[in-house]
Amino acid sequence: MITGKNQIGNTLSALSKNTFRTFNPALSIANEPLFYEASDQEIEKAMQLADEAYATYKNVSGAQKADFLDSIADEIIKIGDVLISTYIAETGLPEGRAIGERGRTVNQLKAFAELLREGSWIEATIDTALPDREPVPKPDIRKMNIPIGPVVVFGASNFPLAFSTAGGDTASALAAGCPVIVKSHPLHAGTGELVAAAIAKAAAKTQMPNGVFSNLNSSGIEVGQKLVSHPLTKAVGFTGSFKAGKALLDLAAQRKEPIPVFAEMGSVNPVILLREALQNNSKELATTYAQSITLGAGQFCTNPGLLIGLQSKALDQFIALLTDQLNAISPSCMLHPSIQQSYENNKSTLIAQSGVQQLTTSNLELTANYGLPSLTTVSGSDFINNPQLHQEVFGPLSLLVRCKNIAEALQVINSLEGQLTGTVMADKDDISHYPQLIDSLSQKVGRLIFNGAPTGVEVCPAMTHGGPYPATTDSRFTSVGTAAIYRWVRPLSYQNWPDALLPDALKNKNPLQLYRRVNGALTNTAI
Amino acid sequence: MITGKNQIGNTLSALSKNTFRTFNPALSIANEPLFYEASDQEIEKAMQLADEAYATYKNVSGAQKADFLDSIADEIIKIGDVLISTYIAETGLPEGRAIGERGRTVNQLKAFAELLREGSWIEATIDTALPDREPVPKPDIRKMNIPIGPVVVFGASNFPLAFSTAGGDTASALAAGCPVIVKSHPLHAGTGELVAAAIAKAAAKTQMPNGVFSNLNSSGIEVGQKLVSHPLTKAVGFTGSFKAGKALLDLAAQRKEPIPVFAEMGSVNPVILLREALQNNSKELATTYAQSITLGAGQFCTNPGLLIGLQSKALDQFIALLTDQLNAISPSCMLHPSIQQSYENNKSTLIAQSGVQQLTTSNLELTANYGLPSLTTVSGSDFINNPQLHQEVFGPLSLLVRCKNIAEALQVINSLEGQLTGTVMADKDDISHYPQLIDSLSQKVGRLIFNGAPTGVEVCPAMTHGGPYPATTDSRFTSVGTAAIYRWVRPLSYQNWPDALLPDALKNKNPLQLYRRVNGALTNTAI
Repeated sequence: MITGKNQIGNTLSALSKNTFRTFNPALSIANEPLFYEASDQEIEKAMQLADEAYATYKNVSGAQKADFLDSIADEIIKIGDVLISTYIAETGLPEGRAIGERGRTVNQLKAFAELLREGSWIEATIDTALPDREPVPKPDIRKMNIPIGPVVVFGASNFPLAFSTAGGDTASALAAGCPVIVKSHPLHAGTGELVAAAIAKAAAKTQMPNGVFSNLNSSGIEVGQKLVSHPLTKAVGFTGSFKAGKALLDLAAQRKEPIPVFAEMGSVNPVILLREALQNNSKELATTYAQSITLGAGQFCTNPGLLIGLQSKALDQFIALLTDQLNAISPSCMLHPSIQQSYENNKSTLIAQSGVQQLTTSNLELTANYGLPSLTTVSGSDFINNPQLHQEVFGPLSLLVRCKNIAEALQVINSLEGQLTGTVMADKDDISHYPQLIDSLSQKVGRLIFNGAPTGVEVCPAMTHGGPYPATTDSRFTSVGTAAIYRWVRPLSYQNWPDALLPDALKNKNPLQLYRRVNGALTNTAI
Repeated sequence: MITGKNQIGNTLSALSKNTFRTFNPALSIANEPLFYEASDQEIEKAMQLADEAYATYKNVSGAQKADFLDSIADEIIKIGDVLISTYIAETGLPEGRAIGERGRTVNQLKAFAELLREGSWIEATIDTALPDREPVPKPDIRKMNIPIGPVVVFGASNFPLAFSTAGGDTASALAAGCPVIVKSHPLHAGTGELVAAAIAKAAAKTQMPNGVFSNLNSSGIEVGQKLVSHPLTKAVGFTGSFKAGKALLDLAAQRKEPIPVFAEMGSVNPVILLREALQNNSKELATTYAQSITLGAGQFCTNPGLLIGLQSKALDQFIALLTDQLNAISPSCMLHPSIQQSYENNKSTLIAQSGVQQLTTSNLELTANYGLPSLTTVSGSDFINNPQLHQEVFGPLSLLVRCKNIAEALQVINSLEGQLTGTVMADKDDISHYPQLIDSLSQKVGRLIFNGAPTGVEVCPAMTHGGPYPATTDSRFTSVGTAAIYRWVRPLSYQNWPDALLPDALKNKNPLQLYRRVNGALTNTAI
């Protein structure tokens, strides 16, 4: 049963009189029950508990943390159908998506558990002493990664499971040894509460300290601001809009002790359509892109919002096919009336810009809260000269830029801000003719994709879900994949430290059997 | 011959009428020649050239960059005696220090050259495809580190060679593939020019693009501010005061595109003196610390500015010995009259605080610009209650805090801000009795030292010269040791990218013979 209360460590709490409900966009009705806004007292309690938990949790072994993460995964599955039905009621997304996202979330937790058991994320590095070195002896220096402290995670509107309560930010921070305080997303507070309860159960079962996890409700921005400003907070994970992410970044920079903010703030994910690809595969390509643009009602940070083509018959044919396909796709329910309204507003602003034309049919009778797929187009020169056209329209929309030639396409790419992904649709021969294009694109993105769609972000060690500002606030880190753990750690070195007092990861005998870099060479043997 | 001009790519330039001179603090005279402030036009030129150079330099092979770094090292040695005499004339530091620091600088460049030849810094990670995976195929994803773009480096007053023109920041950024623009430190502009010329020669000899390096003169703060604010700057390296570092951090955060600032801003480097160590080795300890406190006139960021002892006969004896030793050490010339004046002012402020007592003799007749070694003392409770006492006094001074017991020592440690280092002087038995003390100290520092002095920062893979704010602006990175390269890179992933078009580091055949993480396992074999 969903209580509407805040999960503060191992207790439920509802001190505030301020309440809110979530909304079912498919049925246009408010959901039960009432959710209680986190009060200042509850924020303080969650932060104090997190700080206390950190004192022991930071020293919990990798094997024990792995059991905790596995247990969270198990408890999420055990919630059963109510998790799926709550997810659907709070998002308007279909059952298949809910089940898929649950699977992704559980697999993510298990991937971090595996990483902890394997241990390489500690990056143990040892340089042994040279006592006879002249003119001064070389000391013994050993280094490993340690957790940085309590982490505040913001739930994302568009991924109630995989990027929210027990999503990638939480899983990676808990894996690193950092307690987590989640600012639950108000659109899916019920889903959040169910998952928070699963985490609390897992923490109790695996004897984790009270306060290792808390989940706070809030329908506004104040709770999040207070969490980011709280002196005990050591880092922030966020997925959402540029406006909100930038506000948190600025807030964190103004603290007495500035802290890192890892905000993933969306992207238009440019796709370059080279000639031969269009000539050979235009139908298949149109199908791929019609599906990618409308996947999840276009509510993905990797949605292909910008298609860049070279004027040609093949491009005209592709445009016609893609327009037909998008016209034929039924509109999907969006996450909330406010999101659907923003989509309509941003689309109208886009279409009102000089030279922009909408290609898809726009006179369909729409169910409330549904987003109509849209393909718009503009010339390369109009695009280059109007930064408004570079902005993301969150929803099932793509802007196709028609370039006169490769030189103009290059200008279009160079005019872009930082992006999560950049895709090239091409034949292999085709692509090898334009090294400058690829080189320029690589400077703008965190992930390059060949002949695919940017939607779909694999959870694996080699994934970069990140990119230059303003796609994220820190291009040096990813928020998806096991490397996401590095956001929550810092190195600590030990000089001439007695072996018995070193952490196990750095002891001569290598009791954890880690691969360590010893005097420059990787080895898992003892010293 | 020193020209006083700015090194802008491969040309010398002196457009400004604003000039300044460096100063010989040992002789109290201004040095020849005049240095020309970098003009706005010269700043713009250096940044444009750096950006153009980046287009090719980012793709230069590791082997070629290694040759460039080795060549810089060679050219620095070839400067010969004039480098040493200029260094001495601009700093008042002794010849041995000048020669030692040159050796360190050259070895640092060579260490990064070796790192480039070895290649592990690229962190090549490959997850191969699973085309038959259900419900969706797994794509091939490959990741490596790439350089982020032009880096602005600020020369440090106290290390004209090792932390300035061709110091650790420059060496690591050039190794990463980032062009460097140095804001030369005005106290040693001549030393800077000589080293800049060596870098320019090495760049020409090894066919590096024009603009891969520039060196700009400035006696004020405006040139540095303009460089940090310049849209083509992608990151900043700085070593110096908290005030200056924080100002740069704020400036970078206010840019349209915020950029990372790696500022190392000093530290009081707490040293905990446990009972048995004092009982058994007080004389040796006093000698070690008298030398560490006065090394380089105390002008080190790792200077032991804070000694924490437990009230006892052994502590009293140690204090007496250390006081005697410091009284017997001749004052050293400080870097500049302004630095000597700051030292005197900060010392006076410290001594004026409630409960602070100066133990060393302070009535010596001093040569101008010389800094008198000083030992001061205060009780644990006075220290905890007065944040002014937590501030660094840059110079040959240490504050010894007398704690009633271990509990108070723990309170002292917990009251501290972030530090570069924390040292424990103890017997092995001794230290194992106070796990809480070590645990708390580890939360405050980047490097823990057992029975040693914090001065002396080994250049090696396991070194962390960094630490929690305000010791640095980013505790996740080091500014000394080969790991310093990670400040200037970001990951880029390739999805289903054609093998022939992948960078060599990620190709199936592994032509660079790198150790790569392939499907989770480290291997240097082909795929």
